[in-house]
Amino acid sequence: MGRVTERRKVIRIRDGAVTTRPDTLVAEEPLEIRLNGKPLAITMRTPGDDFALAAGFLVSEGVLGAAEDLQNIVYCAGATVDGSNTYNVVDVKTAPGVVIPDITLERNVYTTSSCGLCGKASLDAVRTTARWPIADTPPVRLDPDLLAGLPDRLRAAQRVFDRTGGLHAAALFTEDGELLDIREDVGRHNAVDKLVGRALQNGDLPLSRTVLLVSGRASFELAQKAVMAGIPVLAAVSAPSSLAVDLAAETGLTLVGFLRGSSMNVYAGEHRLALRTAAAQA
Amino acid sequence: MGRVTERRKVIRIRDGAVTTRPDTLVAEEPLEIRLNGKPLAITMRTPGDDFALAAGFLVSEGVLGAAEDLQNIVYCAGATVDGSNTYNVVDVKTAPGVVIPDITLERNVYTTSSCGLCGKASLDAVRTTARWPIADTPPVRLDPDLLAGLPDRLRAAQRVFDRTGGLHAAALFTEDGELLDIREDVGRHNAVDKLVGRALQNGDLPLSRTVLLVSGRASFELAQKAVMAGIPVLAAVSAPSSLAVDLAAETGLTLVGFLRGSSMNVYAGEHRLALRTAAAQA
Repeated sequence: MGRVTERRKVIRIRDGAVTTRPDTLVAEEPLEIRLNGKPLAITMRTPGDDFALAAGFLVSEGVLGAAEDLQNIVYCAGATVDGSNTYNVVDVKTAPGVVIPDITLERNVYTTSSCGLCGKASLDAVRTTARWPIADTPPVRLDPDLLAGLPDRLRAAQRVFDRTGGLHAAALFTEDGELLDIREDVGRHNAVDKLVGRALQNGDLPLSRTVLLVSGRASFELAQKAVMAGIPVLAAVSAPSSLAVDLAAETGLTLVGFLRGSSMNVYAGEHRLALRTAAAQA
Repeated sequence: MGRVTERRKVIRIRDGAVTTRPDTLVAEEPLEIRLNGKPLAITMRTPGDDFALAAGFLVSEGVLGAAEDLQNIVYCAGATVDGSNTYNVVDVKTAPGVVIPDITLERNVYTTSSCGLCGKASLDAVRTTARWPIADTPPVRLDPDLLAGLPDRLRAAQRVFDRTGGLHAAALFTEDGELLDIREDVGRHNAVDKLVGRALQNGDLPLSRTVLLVSGRASFELAQKAVMAGIPVLAAVSAPSSLAVDLAAETGLTLVGFLRGSSMNVYAGEHRLALRTAAAQA
């Protein structure tokens, strides 16, 4: 269990020259997440931190909000031919009294009579299920220079990426730029779930004084995960989607994209950044 | 409908200077795919080519294999407040006689009594449902130099990426390096589904003399989509996962990763590449 990388033979071609050697690949295995014994979702993930992944997934789905909501998490028997556990099925048992919302496999995308299936309905679903409104988080005022320095620190802390090139990363920083935690996974959403799940287990939700940095693009799903964990700032190295920006604008999330070198784009929630205007610079 | 990009206000910070201007973002909206009237899946996608996306998704799931399997695809009513169609729900009606396999939302990840939930079970599921065994495709022998030239051509053909930086791309090339089709989407799996669905609609399945190039990493899911469409060669600009390599090795798919400049790694199916050995080079 928990193998983050695997070795395979690879044929390398460099300017026509061919060599064969062992190569390190990022491991990918299915994980089934059960809730109180009932199958809920299957995700392709990099093994490791599976309990945190399951817990974080359930924070995003609105099921868990604090360590006390969790009774326990166990690996279910899921035997291979030789009888050993595959460690690819986890069951999350909620504490007595925890109300399970109506979770569908559609992941917070609802059809309502008023709006067909549309982005607006997706935004409303997140806004109404969020436990900690982002607009109510303590005031934070980040220096853009501090933000600009975070991607290099994410990259330096990515241990597995250096060996495989095959992992997404997500990291939590304090508002002072201190690295709190970093997770890597073949799926970016899994890396964020692992961060959030670990925080839940440590009693650290809501993550109201943190910055979430992701290695690639910012989709609706990642913005949703930030909002559901009470994270006020989401920064991405690449582009956001339209629906991620809409969700940020609607919930008060600060969304920064194209965070590269000393430049970045701010799509929403600019009040959390200490901005000097172009005029002030001149 | 079909808006591939959307405009939003963005605050740009460059070396401390702040400017505000409109920015172009990649559009992201939910799409519900129904099969014969029954909801099957929801995916967050870039609007456009929705019928091809739905058809391609159903090729990957083993439902469709030829244009004749398809009776029609329609947008369902899904009205906004003002009564206009959201164009976010499509219903695929299969032709009489088409046998619908037992599709679960778990996307070809099966639990079997012999193997718990594990990568091996996922591989077996694809192998047993594939209509066109990759090992049986006509012999193809590609020059690595030809492969090396494809990423630049993909990049040149990516119209939306240039404006938003927010899209994944997938392209089909002939074995002679001719660009057949390219699709862009906020989700890489959607871009591949759109390519495959369009090919199905055109009567071009199986895609047995083509190369599929994807802009990022090669996951299990993308390798699965190649196999299900009868595509013998999958090339990725970045790293593959362990399970993608295992699926390629088991099905006979040629899997190339880290395709950059004049170099690449071949993880499986090297018999389709015209390789000169290092010894022959010396």
